[in-house]
Amino acid sequence: MKFGLFGGAVRRGETADSASYGKFIDYVSAADRFGYAGIFIVEHHFSGIGQVSASLNFLTYLAAKTTNIRLGTAVTVLPWHNPVLLAEEVATLDLLSNGRLDFGVGKGYRDIEFKGFCIPKEEAQARYEEALEIMFKAWQSRERFSYHSDLWNFEDIIVEPEPVQKPYPPIWTGAGTPASIARVAGAGFNVLLDQYGDFGLTRERVANFRAACEAAGRTYDPMQLGLTRAVVMTGSSRETDEATEARANRVGAMDRFGRLPGLPEQPASYAESGQAPDDAAIIGEPNQVIERLLELKEFGVEYVLMLATGTPETLGNFADKIMPALGTDDQAIGSAAE
Amino acid sequence: MKFGLFGGAVRRGETADSASYGKFIDYVSAADRFGYAGIFIVEHHFSGIGQVSASLNFLTYLAAKTTNIRLGTAVTVLPWHNPVLLAEEVATLDLLSNGRLDFGVGKGYRDIEFKGFCIPKEEAQARYEEALEIMFKAWQSRERFSYHSDLWNFEDIIVEPEPVQKPYPPIWTGAGTPASIARVAGAGFNVLLDQYGDFGLTRERVANFRAACEAAGRTYDPMQLGLTRAVVMTGSSRETDEATEARANRVGAMDRFGRLPGLPEQPASYAESGQAPDDAAIIGEPNQVIERLLELKEFGVEYVLMLATGTPETLGNFADKIMPALGTDDQAIGSAAE
Repeated sequence: MKFGLFGGAVRRGETADSASYGKFIDYVSAADRFGYAGIFIVEHHFSGIGQVSASLNFLTYLAAKTTNIRLGTAVTVLPWHNPVLLAEEVATLDLLSNGRLDFGVGKGYRDIEFKGFCIPKEEAQARYEEALEIMFKAWQSRERFSYHSDLWNFEDIIVEPEPVQKPYPPIWTGAGTPASIARVAGAGFNVLLDQYGDFGLTRERVANFRAACEAAGRTYDPMQLGLTRAVVMTGSSRETDEATEARANRVGAMDRFGRLPGLPEQPASYAESGQAPDDAAIIGEPNQVIERLLELKEFGVEYVLMLATGTPETLGNFADKIMPALGTDDQAIGSAAE
Repeated sequence: MKFGLFGGAVRRGETADSASYGKFIDYVSAADRFGYAGIFIVEHHFSGIGQVSASLNFLTYLAAKTTNIRLGTAVTVLPWHNPVLLAEEVATLDLLSNGRLDFGVGKGYRDIEFKGFCIPKEEAQARYEEALEIMFKAWQSRERFSYHSDLWNFEDIIVEPEPVQKPYPPIWTGAGTPASIARVAGAGFNVLLDQYGDFGLTRERVANFRAACEAAGRTYDPMQLGLTRAVVMTGSSRETDEATEARANRVGAMDRFGRLPGLPEQPASYAESGQAPDDAAIIGEPNQVIERLLELKEFGVEYVLMLATGTPETLGNFADKIMPALGTDDQAIGSAAE
């Protein structure tokens, strides 16, 4: 099993200044040293709370500060971007990182972003598909080409540089329903599963992706499925209870900017609601965390993306206490990063 | 006097691959160590010869690899970009480089780029002005704002992160005629003077900028004027002749993609044409180079941007043999980079 990180560079309640970016740079550098396989960072606009907006630029900075860790977006919302400029940015990062880019794409879900860019939400799917089509052409064509539609017009262009990964960096995208998972598998993309699906649902989703890959004539590679999880290693059962309650409340506060499609409704406070906290998070003392991870491994999860909420120290602790029991070794990670 | 570098990351005849980018990264790192004050890199699209396309991303990588050197675009062509996404990218680079960005802007001149992006050349000026207006608002407004025009629509946005340099990074732009120089001075921008203007014309331009700054009620600071020059230090008069001829032929071949406005017509080969080579370049043995630079200094040039055509070794030689005679010292450069 391999471990990566997933999250925003600027933590809740921080200001988006040099100090907060600097802290995150140290955190990712530590992950690189400790043998974490990858990091996926979110991109958001107009949130007013300092979330990273220029995620590809920031990853390009991180490429210079790290050696092995893969660098991902989760996700770049294609409707916001000029697809040709985006293809150039992606290829430049792939080149400068020596092929370490994992390019996560999405069509957007936050109302304030659709409103901010003045793009109708009902155009999102078409814009997303068109952007992918143009980017695939841009990365692969070594001849000049033209593209014309109602949205985008390019005449007699050749896009440079070429990406290092051929024919282009792995494309990742989120999916949850059987239909969307089948589409991702059929398109040849890798899949990001969310942090909210409980273990039962996650097991189904993994099985769906595996079956859909096989149906699409594609060899299933477990590193093409990234499972996002809140993972908190505690020192006592009291700490476990506290972390469980904190997690539940965080989930309740999550959707201030609009829900990811398909999420169940969450109460504002689990403690007040009397509902059971979700079964999705992995919170406990080291032996409990290992047990839960082995359960995931048993149904085919090999790449767990932990919410990037800790410190270099918690990354080191996890690497020391958990990774060896899951068979995570540097050699395996080395090959994943190639 | 201070020295910077100006140019493309991928040299003529090179392939735009990891090796050529890597060579340029080593070159800029060396410039940083040797006390060069800044680097300006070009951005071009669709050239088919591997010129840097994602210049802000590349500079963000260089920000991580360097400490003091200022990082500039020369220029970012505003009509190609969504001004809000660009404002985010610029601010992110400014933040990550700790305020080392020199943001060079232009309205574009290459026909293949206007054609490629399907943007009519006659809209360039209006698009340029509108992009600046939106970016200035984006960098400075700590309140949400909206912007609507025929070209761009943004509703209820706040743009993050804030740039580190306040109110925003220095804006640089090219100018040559008295009218354009006066406009740049009046707008509060810094000016980039081209590598083609001979010493007589350069003297006039510097005087024009100085006068225009004073007329605009602005204190003239010589570090707000960057003079681009071909500078070649040779070891003998024979080498000087060869470098002079090579330079002349390069100038003749320069405008394959469209001319910068206002340049004189150049013959295809100076040797064949019988015309005298231009007086703009600074080519000679160390004492001759120093003499020519002192001439520039005498009429008010304090920041010379040398075409980035050499190697780490030539940068070191120049730093050893030329800089001391011009009073370039690390302390002065340190303050320039702040």
